[in-house]
Amino acid sequence: MHFSSDNWAGAHPKVAAHLSAHSGGFDAAYGNGLLDLQVAERFSEIFEREVSVFFVGTGTAANSLSLTLSSRPGSISFCHREAHILEDECGAPEFLTGGGRLHAVDGPLGRMDPANLDRAIAHFMPTSVHSGRPAAISITQSTEAGTVYSLDDIAEIAAIAKKYDLPLHMDGARFANALVSLDATPAEMTWKRGVDLLSFGGTKNGCWCAEAIVLFDPAQADELAFIRKRAAQLFSKSRFIAAQFEAYFKDGLWLETASHANAMADKLADAFRASPRTRLAWEPDANEVFAIMKKATSDAALASGAAFYPWPRPHGFAGQIEDDETICRFVTSFATTQAHVDAMAALIA
Amino acid sequence: MHFSSDNWAGAHPKVAAHLSAHSGGFDAAYGNGLLDLQVAERFSEIFEREVSVFFVGTGTAANSLSLTLSSRPGSISFCHREAHILEDECGAPEFLTGGGRLHAVDGPLGRMDPANLDRAIAHFMPTSVHSGRPAAISITQSTEAGTVYSLDDIAEIAAIAKKYDLPLHMDGARFANALVSLDATPAEMTWKRGVDLLSFGGTKNGCWCAEAIVLFDPAQADELAFIRKRAAQLFSKSRFIAAQFEAYFKDGLWLETASHANAMADKLADAFRASPRTRLAWEPDANEVFAIMKKATSDAALASGAAFYPWPRPHGFAGQIEDDETICRFVTSFATTQAHVDAMAALIA
Amino acid sequence: MHFSSDNWAGAHPKVAAHLSAHSGGFDAAYGNGLLDLQVAERFSEIFEREVSVFFVGTGTAANSLSLTLSSRPGSISFCHREAHILEDECGAPEFLTGGGRLHAVDGPLGRMDPANLDRAIAHFMPTSVHSGRPAAISITQSTEAGTVYSLDDIAEIAAIAKKYDLPLHMDGARFANALVSLDATPAEMTWKRGVDLLSFGGTKNGCWCAEAIVLFDPAQADELAFIRKRAAQLFSKSRFIAAQFEAYFKDGLWLETASHANAMADKLADAFRASPRTRLAWEPDANEVFAIMKKATSDAALASGAAFYPWPRPHGFAGQIEDDETICRFVTSFATTQAHVDAMAALIA
Amino acid sequence: MHFSSDNWAGAHPKVAAHLSAHSGGFDAAYGNGLLDLQVAERFSEIFEREVSVFFVGTGTAANSLSLTLSSRPGSISFCHREAHILEDECGAPEFLTGGGRLHAVDGPLGRMDPANLDRAIAHFMPTSVHSGRPAAISITQSTEAGTVYSLDDIAEIAAIAKKYDLPLHMDGARFANALVSLDATPAEMTWKRGVDLLSFGGTKNGCWCAEAIVLFDPAQADELAFIRKRAAQLFSKSRFIAAQFEAYFKDGLWLETASHANAMADKLADAFRASPRTRLAWEPDANEVFAIMKKATSDAALASGAAFYPWPRPHGFAGQIEDDETICRFVTSFATTQAHVDAMAALIA
Repeated sequence: MHFSSDNWAGAHPKVAAHLSAHSGGFDAAYGNGLLDLQVAERFSEIFEREVSVFFVGTGTAANSLSLTLSSRPGSISFCHREAHILEDECGAPEFLTGGGRLHAVDGPLGRMDPANLDRAIAHFMPTSVHSGRPAAISITQSTEAGTVYSLDDIAEIAAIAKKYDLPLHMDGARFANALVSLDATPAEMTWKRGVDLLSFGGTKNGCWCAEAIVLFDPAQADELAFIRKRAAQLFSKSRFIAAQFEAYFKDGLWLETASHANAMADKLADAFRASPRTRLAWEPDANEVFAIMKKATSDAALASGAAFYPWPRPHGFAGQIEDDETICRFVTSFATTQAHVDAMAALIA
Repeated sequence: MHFSSDNWAGAHPKVAAHLSAHSGGFDAAYGNGLLDLQVAERFSEIFEREVSVFFVGTGTAANSLSLTLSSRPGSISFCHREAHILEDECGAPEFLTGGGRLHAVDGPLGRMDPANLDRAIAHFMPTSVHSGRPAAISITQSTEAGTVYSLDDIAEIAAIAKKYDLPLHMDGARFANALVSLDATPAEMTWKRGVDLLSFGGTKNGCWCAEAIVLFDPAQADELAFIRKRAAQLFSKSRFIAAQFEAYFKDGLWLETASHANAMADKLADAFRASPRTRLAWEPDANEVFAIMKKATSDAALASGAAFYPWPRPHGFAGQIEDDETICRFVTSFATTQAHVDAMAALIA
Repeated sequence: MHFSSDNWAGAHPKVAAHLSAHSGGFDAAYGNGLLDLQVAERFSEIFEREVSVFFVGTGTAANSLSLTLSSRPGSISFCHREAHILEDECGAPEFLTGGGRLHAVDGPLGRMDPANLDRAIAHFMPTSVHSGRPAAISITQSTEAGTVYSLDDIAEIAAIAKKYDLPLHMDGARFANALVSLDATPAEMTWKRGVDLLSFGGTKNGCWCAEAIVLFDPAQADELAFIRKRAAQLFSKSRFIAAQFEAYFKDGLWLETASHANAMADKLADAFRASPRTRLAWEPDANEVFAIMKKATSDAALASGAAFYPWPRPHGFAGQIEDDETICRFVTSFATTQAHVDAMAALIA
Repeated sequence: MHFSSDNWAGAHPKVAAHLSAHSGGFDAAYGNGLLDLQVAERFSEIFEREVSVFFVGTGTAANSLSLTLSSRPGSISFCHREAHILEDECGAPEFLTGGGRLHAVDGPLGRMDPANLDRAIAHFMPTSVHSGRPAAISITQSTEAGTVYSLDDIAEIAAIAKKYDLPLHMDGARFANALVSLDATPAEMTWKRGVDLLSFGGTKNGCWCAEAIVLFDPAQADELAFIRKRAAQLFSKSRFIAAQFEAYFKDGLWLETASHANAMADKLADAFRASPRTRLAWEPDANEVFAIMKKATSDAALASGAAFYPWPRPHGFAGQIEDDETICRFVTSFATTQAHVDAMAALIA
């Protein structure tokens, strides 16, 4: 009953096996190997256009270096108040951008409200040196609340980005989960809706350590190469990431694992709906379920060995939580089984 | 005939297999897993004292974050002019330390001359705000020239560090190669000779991606935890590094692979000695061989598919190179075979 | 009718004359001159304890370098949402602290609400590397809304600072205006109520360019000396600041100019109260008056040459503003005359 | 007998008086005042082309922010080993550029040797992310050794800058002293010889605190405005700098003070030549004299109240210094009198 996070799982057997299979031989280091190049092409196929791909070690790195690309003195990037870059990265984006600021924008259930976003950006006069200047917008897909931006939502945010001439970044730590939730193509969920650059996460969805920055404007690649190296994110044996991605994409494994995780979340949601002692905080769109539980139920479940986190900071949640209740987060992954879900359901039944 | 670098190899089969074997199940993320803790204890055993271990993704990260620990405004760290941190890391140490400076110290064959080092540090008055203030000394073991500091050499540098109350950092990207070269224990080559913190590299010697900062003073661990996270170097599925190190240390694999690499370098050196068209630039101590070759010989070897780099910047080399000669670097690794060496020998014979 | 800002004035004649009088002779550079030392002692007298004083060039520098003292990786400093460091310094605090974050805390009329502050800090777990860690609290006295924290208010904030073991910084760009408003001593308004370090501003209140960081814990002076120099804020002819402060303190000039500015603000407030077409947004405590004016009245006044700013962002203002109204800021200074006030009063009468 | 540094003097009486005369009235803050604009135009006249001017508080700020303009990840700026930015600014250039590196280039008597410079730049391959990439060249005029680059010297360095497509920065902390030494126009000594941007210093030559960055390419002005503000170098009462510069330029005061300082240096040099116990280390070009003195003579002079610094680090000095000798630096300024020189001459006679 491991629902703490999707990064508590290990690697998918196919990813592990493929990595092993690639462990022999020699190839150029620092991202110039044959496998690196092949996988980079694979990204272009998947996104249906020429993209530039930069492997990095962590989602935090992917996000921070993405924002670095458009950072200048006095830069301000806009994101949801609960965004991972703001809540969970120890100031890495501020540090790695050289002192840029993140500006919190509110919105229900993990999604920035477009009107709030527009107002927040409009507050800054780009020619005034005093207040600082907008540099980027970052959305998380799927969000920290386990919801997703619809394709129209993305287009609406992108219109604001265009209005202010700002790049639109997507933190895709759970990209695949959102993709299968929307039943969209990677192109539709990104550049076709106005996304300019993407943190493409593979780790949470079945890889060991496979994160990439995807640039839809390859003209920025030369600069990002230096940004990455200077941030100590250029791996010598880069093919260890490339090999994971190769397995990840092969035969649609990534969509399969994401679909499985989402399906497990749906079943878990059913269990929370069914129990008289629990209820859904809101409807899940991807692989994270937020449930409001009687404290006694939650305590008992934890005591029985279920692993999940209380989540006392859902800013965008407008509902009521009673004194004897607690809100908790459950995350599913490729490694979640029906048996895990059933066991959890039994604990709360 | 792959002698470009030890990071052109993949992963040792035992490392790859062990990583695969650990791919299932669930474990706490962000370095708090059971395997992380077990491997951390293994480090303490290997170094014969309690140490704190921080996994990071690259040697550049290990070096930069090590130096960050002692960095303050106006900080200056001292290293050899050819040190990796100065020559090959795109300013990552300066950037990640928040603007610290690296000060180049000369010395023959990759090793800082102690007198030069002492003089360089003495130049700065620690109470004057103008010139900046010394913050750390960093040595590379084995060096970029393929030589090693003897245990006495290390103690001599450490005495200078102590004299100026500076921490002594060791860049051990090729730690194991130096260790077997000196036939010393890890403790003898580090804290017993005055080293305070270490970039412990596993990648070049058989891992995919396994680098660690080892603190001999665990009191600094709390701060380094934040430094690492802020630099985007805390891996969620941290056990993918732990598992590599577990295999690396098991049954002395790491010493075996390093011994093999060094032995291959010795044989390669024999070949350069034996050929009338090549000679050793200097005696190799570890797994890097620098040879002076007739340009025609070098060109022919490259044309035949041999992979190695011309190395036109050996600052500490005092010998003569003729106009028809070139100096080249050959690196061996766990993956180098006798057949590779024989083929290379045949090309220059 | 110059009410744009107190920094539109020049220098008080006595400050200017004193600076001129000190222009001859020779004295040690970089803050080590006799006059520097004398003025530093003067600060200790004024604050009734030994303090360390660092002259800097701008209030932004004083604030940013104050926060740098307690900054560490992942640092977060807490301030009011309208604080100058957040709204008007182009990210200098974030940049100069090496990537630290400012966290906005709400509260009415420029003052942080203590409960909000406590809750904001409690959100961060100081041992978790993910969310970042609190580093400092900064209050502005007088505030950007022209109000002041009472001595009890300061003590209440200081208790929160102590509870979380955080230094309490005061941005005293308008320190003297608050001081005379409260009829308190410098000691009472700072360290006796728990303030740890202070940006002491002289510029707005009659100097050309005289800002200082005052440390109530001189043990931090050594580090701040490097912080200041590295930030390019150590003046060679430092006595040009010292001389201004000498004149500023002589015979209580600074309190006299602040009292004058506050009195002018009071008279201006009377005018806004008296006019049927204007009203006070809130009661002023120091030298800034915020008035709600009929737009037609405001436009006519501006057209007549009155200089003041519309101020469309008073976050802590809970009152109503009608469609035909606008909120504007008026700032008085040592240079404001009764004639200026009368002329303004005539325009709105 | 004050020869410690030209920044031990105060302000020239005309500068002080002019500053006083401008202390009344109101003017726009933050560099937008009428006087700011008038003085900016004055700069354009003096340089015989449209320039953009940014006042800052210190020479360190002028230098650091100038280099920031062309800084990018992995940036390396080239300067003389004894350059002020490298020896005397506590790492401010590295810090304020966001982690850029300064690369020391040797050359006799404070001037970079062009061949050394070319070789140093050529060492870096601009497309390789590993070694870092050249970003700027900085020369100091007059140099730290009191010598000057001839107009041809500047053109030669500029040709190297052009060859590598790098901006050429001039640290003109003692710009006027060099100018009168060369009997050149400001245009001839800068943009007409290929200088792209300039730290224009007024402080050492008679102002209190008057430093400016002069951009010969005004297209960069927008970016520098943010760079300056973010570095806490935008003064609110900016006219206090403008007024100093107005006086400085009026009736050629700046050339007069510089000529005077240089003439005093010449006379001092005569004294060192004439004494059997002292000799010139090298011929001075501007207002700094380096003398080799018998230690006994130096000690006696210091004991008699003469103020000057031993200068034990003239890297570019190839001559011999005997065991009983010491090398010392003497700096003259607008405030140096014939009496000072005579007194010094008497001490060494």
